[in-house]
Amino acid sequence: MNSIHPALIGSLSSTASPEKVINFSPGPTSLPEAVEKQIAANFQKPGLTSLALSHRSPEFIAILEHAVNTARKVMAIPDDYEVLFTHGGGHGQFAALPLNLCHEPTDTATYVVNGTWSARGCDEAKRYCNVQTIDAQDTKTGNYLSFPELTEEIIDKESKYVYLCSNETVNGIELHRLPKLPESRKHIPLVVDASSDFSTKPIDWHGCGVGVLFACASKNIGHPGLTITIVRKDLLGKASPLCPGVFNYTTNSEAGNLWNTPATFNIEVVGLVMDWIEREGGVEANEQRSIAKAKMLYDVIDNANGFYATPINDKSLRSRMNVPFNIAGGDLALTEQFLIESWEQGLIGLRTLTPFGVGDYLRASIYNGITLKQVTTLAEFMVKFAQKHR
Amino acid sequence: MNSIHPALIGSLSSTASPEKVINFSPGPTSLPEAVEKQIAANFQKPGLTSLALSHRSPEFIAILEHAVNTARKVMAIPDDYEVLFTHGGGHGQFAALPLNLCHEPTDTATYVVNGTWSARGCDEAKRYCNVQTIDAQDTKTGNYLSFPELTEEIIDKESKYVYLCSNETVNGIELHRLPKLPESRKHIPLVVDASSDFSTKPIDWHGCGVGVLFACASKNIGHPGLTITIVRKDLLGKASPLCPGVFNYTTNSEAGNLWNTPATFNIEVVGLVMDWIEREGGVEANEQRSIAKAKMLYDVIDNANGFYATPINDKSLRSRMNVPFNIAGGDLALTEQFLIESWEQGLIGLRTLTPFGVGDYLRASIYNGITLKQVTTLAEFMVKFAQKHR
Repeated sequence: MNSIHPALIGSLSSTASPEKVINFSPGPTSLPEAVEKQIAANFQKPGLTSLALSHRSPEFIAILEHAVNTARKVMAIPDDYEVLFTHGGGHGQFAALPLNLCHEPTDTATYVVNGTWSARGCDEAKRYCNVQTIDAQDTKTGNYLSFPELTEEIIDKESKYVYLCSNETVNGIELHRLPKLPESRKHIPLVVDASSDFSTKPIDWHGCGVGVLFACASKNIGHPGLTITIVRKDLLGKASPLCPGVFNYTTNSEAGNLWNTPATFNIEVVGLVMDWIEREGGVEANEQRSIAKAKMLYDVIDNANGFYATPINDKSLRSRMNVPFNIAGGDLALTEQFLIESWEQGLIGLRTLTPFGVGDYLRASIYNGITLKQVTTLAEFMVKFAQKHR
Repeated sequence: MNSIHPALIGSLSSTASPEKVINFSPGPTSLPEAVEKQIAANFQKPGLTSLALSHRSPEFIAILEHAVNTARKVMAIPDDYEVLFTHGGGHGQFAALPLNLCHEPTDTATYVVNGTWSARGCDEAKRYCNVQTIDAQDTKTGNYLSFPELTEEIIDKESKYVYLCSNETVNGIELHRLPKLPESRKHIPLVVDASSDFSTKPIDWHGCGVGVLFACASKNIGHPGLTITIVRKDLLGKASPLCPGVFNYTTNSEAGNLWNTPATFNIEVVGLVMDWIEREGGVEANEQRSIAKAKMLYDVIDNANGFYATPINDKSLRSRMNVPFNIAGGDLALTEQFLIESWEQGLIGLRTLTPFGVGDYLRASIYNGITLKQVTTLAEFMVKFAQKHR
């Protein structure tokens, strides 16, 4: 008989009472409570549910326009960018990017690899273009602990774009502001995978030369099955003839996000989350909340006299979204005990199935759905656990 | 001031009371009432909502396995087929098919074009392989009114697959049973777009040599953002190197539908619809309901002394899912009056934005979400309208 504790296989069904459960999953994860309540209330209304709306009905068109417009407003997306809702998640965009921006397979694209997700994006691009890689892997540990300086020497002048992931979910590295390419490379559009940090800080669209920025919905702004892809209009019309229609930015833009049936309900939810951000003070206030939440956990880790450790020493690169930490240098028995005790108190999602690398790292993901109060609960648990087991 | 009546722009917000509204949209559309109630009830439960479940949690894995297994059971899918949940809708599969089944762009695939959707699938395939077309377009009307006999003369022996759409939503043509390829072509897998008829009749998987069958969820089995793609296992491992990872049947199959984050909630809903079909007597009973619903509308049309007409004369090809009809030979004023009067009584979704071709055809889509009683309401309205205006 297999008697492994549910906490150790990543169960989300804590024995704590439901109202005590706090979901620290790296995504999919909980939405802000107010949004979840609004969705539940919408399903109680008489008449058609959100799932039943024809994508060509005026009712859905209003929902779509609302989602586009509030995203534009909240993230200050300039008019020379299209806001697309795309299929296929982040992985879909890994293929869509080179297929849209490299007309020929001989075209070059530059990939900054500083973690698991940029590595995956880079691998997928290799099918469709000539990839130039800037790899930030730490040769000693095999982990990604830093972000390379983007000098003109390491970026091909002919590159169709420079790609980076602004928050590496697995590795816990975040660019709190997007970098600017050197003067001689400013003609190259920056392409950003912002899947796990979109909506949590302002973006300097023109200043940083953003060409395309995409974010799968299931971390900060919605639930799985939808990606928001923001494309500077001058980059349209360059797709490879091999680009599948569903991935083609140009045709989807021309069709107003209705080239084929979009994920209607998922789009509605993104609109609700954008409304919530706006109500709560906009992206600036959201960033302050993120800073405060992350600081609380990193402070516990840094003040634990080595009982907890996080891999990223450079505080300017520490992720505000995903806080990886290990216990007593990766002690397996203590890690399991931490997982079980926290889970029984309703703190779930801390164990992930994505291997971090060396050590048994746990990870607290603290997206928009998590409040400062909820982070405090985890922080207090961590302090007590350290006191007991140090 | 634009005073066009909402019914004429396809509004779903009827002035009838919500409980009277019946949604005849061609998809996305309503789910069976029992399923909609179950979803609404699930959102009322305390604790995590379905939107918040990590795709790697045991809780979601159970939901995924349930959806796969009930789909297998309800549709009698043999063990030598994989059940995949894919991104990108039907259009995604239009690209995925040649990319998975034609390793080389010089490979040939045969497309039977008998309506709007097979034409679109055919167009997308042309990017990736050599397409042989069997076109059933009626030269007189420009419409698709028949289905060609699949003889060995018209199917290339080397073809990697023969593609067809088993129900043409726009044109109202349905194959009530899948065809069998001629003996000398039985080595060629049949590929079926069953987007708008999946789950409404049995499929003879082995007997008809089905290689791949796919259905976007948003008509009979769920809501937009998900496609079920059923692949015979011997067809795995043949993908083109150009196939995007999210479309690759082999890697998605090897990863147990978790190669990337799937549309978790959408998958849960498919499982609930499959449960409903099973509870209501399985696919055979579901087919009988479909036959009865369609017969009721076609009987009204055929018995209206020409007041109503439907384009497909061959009754063995009439769609049980989508019933196109025009009024008084396409009389615009009467058609608009029909739309307004029916809409005010809660009969919505009859106007579509997809142009049918000659004549102003309306269309009643009567998927799993529509009951015989609801069809009766429409049939009675049609009879009364004809009596009044003939």
